[in-house]
Amino acid sequence: MNAKKSGRRQFLKNSAALAGLAAGAAGAAAARTPASETPEELHSYGERSHFENTLRKGKVGLWPADTGPRDYGFRTPLQNQMGIITPAGLHFIISHGHEPPDLDPSQHKLLIHGMVDRPLVFSLDELKRLPSVSRFHFVECNANSGPTGPAGAMRREPTATPQQTHGLTSCSLWTGVPLSLLLDQAGVQKSATWMIAEGSELGKHTKSIPIEKATDDCLVAYAQNGEAVRPEQGYPLRLIVPGWEGINNVKWLRRIKLVDQPYMGMMESTKYPSLRLDGNARWFQFEMGPKSVITRPSGGLRMPGPGFYEISGLAWSGGGAIRRVEISTDGGKTWKDAQLQDPIARKAHTRFVFPWEWNGEEVVLQSRSTDERNELQPTREEIASIWHIDMDYYKTSTNLVGHFNAIQPWKINRDGSVLNALFL
Amino acid sequence: MNAKKSGRRQFLKNSAALAGLAAGAAGAAAARTPASETPEELHSYGERSHFENTLRKGKVGLWPADTGPRDYGFRTPLQNQMGIITPAGLHFIISHGHEPPDLDPSQHKLLIHGMVDRPLVFSLDELKRLPSVSRFHFVECNANSGPTGPAGAMRREPTATPQQTHGLTSCSLWTGVPLSLLLDQAGVQKSATWMIAEGSELGKHTKSIPIEKATDDCLVAYAQNGEAVRPEQGYPLRLIVPGWEGINNVKWLRRIKLVDQPYMGMMESTKYPSLRLDGNARWFQFEMGPKSVITRPSGGLRMPGPGFYEISGLAWSGGGAIRRVEISTDGGKTWKDAQLQDPIARKAHTRFVFPWEWNGEEVVLQSRSTDERNELQPTREEIASIWHIDMDYYKTSTNLVGHFNAIQPWKINRDGSVLNALFL
Repeated sequence: MNAKKSGRRQFLKNSAALAGLAAGAAGAAAARTPASETPEELHSYGERSHFENTLRKGKVGLWPADTGPRDYGFRTPLQNQMGIITPAGLHFIISHGHEPPDLDPSQHKLLIHGMVDRPLVFSLDELKRLPSVSRFHFVECNANSGPTGPAGAMRREPTATPQQTHGLTSCSLWTGVPLSLLLDQAGVQKSATWMIAEGSELGKHTKSIPIEKATDDCLVAYAQNGEAVRPEQGYPLRLIVPGWEGINNVKWLRRIKLVDQPYMGMMESTKYPSLRLDGNARWFQFEMGPKSVITRPSGGLRMPGPGFYEISGLAWSGGGAIRRVEISTDGGKTWKDAQLQDPIARKAHTRFVFPWEWNGEEVVLQSRSTDERNELQPTREEIASIWHIDMDYYKTSTNLVGHFNAIQPWKINRDGSVLNALFL
Repeated sequence: MNAKKSGRRQFLKNSAALAGLAAGAAGAAAARTPASETPEELHSYGERSHFENTLRKGKVGLWPADTGPRDYGFRTPLQNQMGIITPAGLHFIISHGHEPPDLDPSQHKLLIHGMVDRPLVFSLDELKRLPSVSRFHFVECNANSGPTGPAGAMRREPTATPQQTHGLTSCSLWTGVPLSLLLDQAGVQKSATWMIAEGSELGKHTKSIPIEKATDDCLVAYAQNGEAVRPEQGYPLRLIVPGWEGINNVKWLRRIKLVDQPYMGMMESTKYPSLRLDGNARWFQFEMGPKSVITRPSGGLRMPGPGFYEISGLAWSGGGAIRRVEISTDGGKTWKDAQLQDPIARKAHTRFVFPWEWNGEEVVLQSRSTDERNELQPTREEIASIWHIDMDYYKTSTNLVGHFNAIQPWKINRDGSVLNALFL
């Protein structure tokens, strides 16, 4: 949006900013008084302002009982995120196995074995000598934004925020070695059609991944947003499987075994298939479909009054790059193109913006994305139809049906309050 | 770099990774045992692993005396950075006025006044309603990588690391409102040819900026790498003046005044002109020239032995996008193209990589960048010639001559040690 093109548009004509005040407005300064740290210590690794209090929100669940592995579920506050990078400290966490392991990078190793010509073991230092790439990729839980399952009730609440509706996706600049290069060094045998990736946590999470994906665009990542991968995200090594269900992105990666069939690990056998109404289940669902969510204005915010607002949000797809995002401000009757902001990367969050004037009346805002394969983000009715599920099921079931990428509507009331209108 | 294209190149043929070990190599896991925090508190805002100890390094100087403003100078550990994003906690700091002010964002205001039709005052909330952009930009101190001035001796040391030679540049994804849009709202009068930007710190830093730049690509930034700008970087508002000397990027921004001449603020009058040998000085030097530095291998590292190494580094230019980076491994006799990695943004750090096999002999590694205006990074001799300074002056002077963007040589000895060879 270029102000000159808009003919000196008065973006703030309804706000106090045009009152023409010319004096005494600047904020007061007050020196910080660190008590116990020298300035050198204080500034050696910076922290955010104490006025900033946006947090991951979530809980640690005991599953199936106090003695079993623990489920972690912490959501990213998307409503406060700017641009496309999720700060590492706010990246969502889903984990199914106790606390993050405390791995010493000087001791950690990655083993590649099974159906290979040359079994290999890599230290971190050895991996860092190899050709590296840095790529933006989202990681998204298959349950994200779904109205059923354990978190379904929260997601259906009219008061839900983007953190509660869509907070199980985050985007980082991941740096690491292409997995294809490591597999090439090991020499994958022709009989190897799958690989099993294994983490180092107490639960020893494993995931079966087809060889076609393993040799495509996967990364063995040691860095995230310019520094080491964070402990909750898999320090010191995480497998990045771009565009696929989060569960494939094995954290604390320590072993890759080339095999000739999927191994039906605990997660792919129990928690990650989608139960169908006929009692069967879909297994090995991999790719996340095109999705988008308006992050401002959004649920939980209150509009101070009529006037100009930039609508802003995030779009992404496991199918590749986002090509188009459209906005409706009339309940879905008409759609207009939003502007996509650079950088636009494949299988990464893409920021969209759309200039908008709120007239103070009730309105429903929606966004829908289209990816490079021309796949359009569906309506909730289209998804229900694909799954042979009726809307009542979506409103009431506690069975998880993942991959719910329906258009998200936010309703703005006359008082400026914004509500989650998925089932309003 | 694609492993398949390289014909199963054995990257690690000289390392232990091909020993063919197949068992017992995975790192051991140990649960963290937080003492006083619940898991919910522990994971609400994540921290890096306690094994990661890379830090900004610097000091707080008293200038001119204990009662005057204090100089902060903390350098980014470029040798540990991956990709192009500098983690916010490691962004370099140069500041000339006491501690970062502790500004309450709900009280902070930006005033735009002077030669405008409509003086304006913006709160943070008002700014966030306006059209926003997110762009990668480096911020670099004009003294960065210079061999003269207060830090010149450290920079000339053969044992210097990239943090010590080039650590006064960092790159972030900045989000904010285009300054041109705000100026357009205020209505800049024709007589206004400059603007003065003022910060909120005790020193009240001001900087004169020509109107051509102010209405070009400047940003009033409220976010950095997806979250609020950090306190040391100007929380809650920083002026971003892409590609120009760091001192223009006024932190804790509270006032912009449109004027008809430069105002000769303290910094532009005293510390930032470059003194020439004839006793005159260059004033108002703005744009940072094309530069590059190999960050791995680099000074302070020790190569474990001959074999494959990826040469990796950063290139940037105030003149726009980096178009080319070349590597010499023979002391500057021949140059070969490095690969530039996405994203390649204007006036931003760009990551380059170059595959290389070290034969164990003495060697000097160098990189040189070319920007979109076809400007080539100069040699130290070319810079000296431009400034009419002889090499002895560069080796000994404590007068600051900024904008030293010479090619950086790293010498690798037979024992694997890497030295800063600028004056070796």
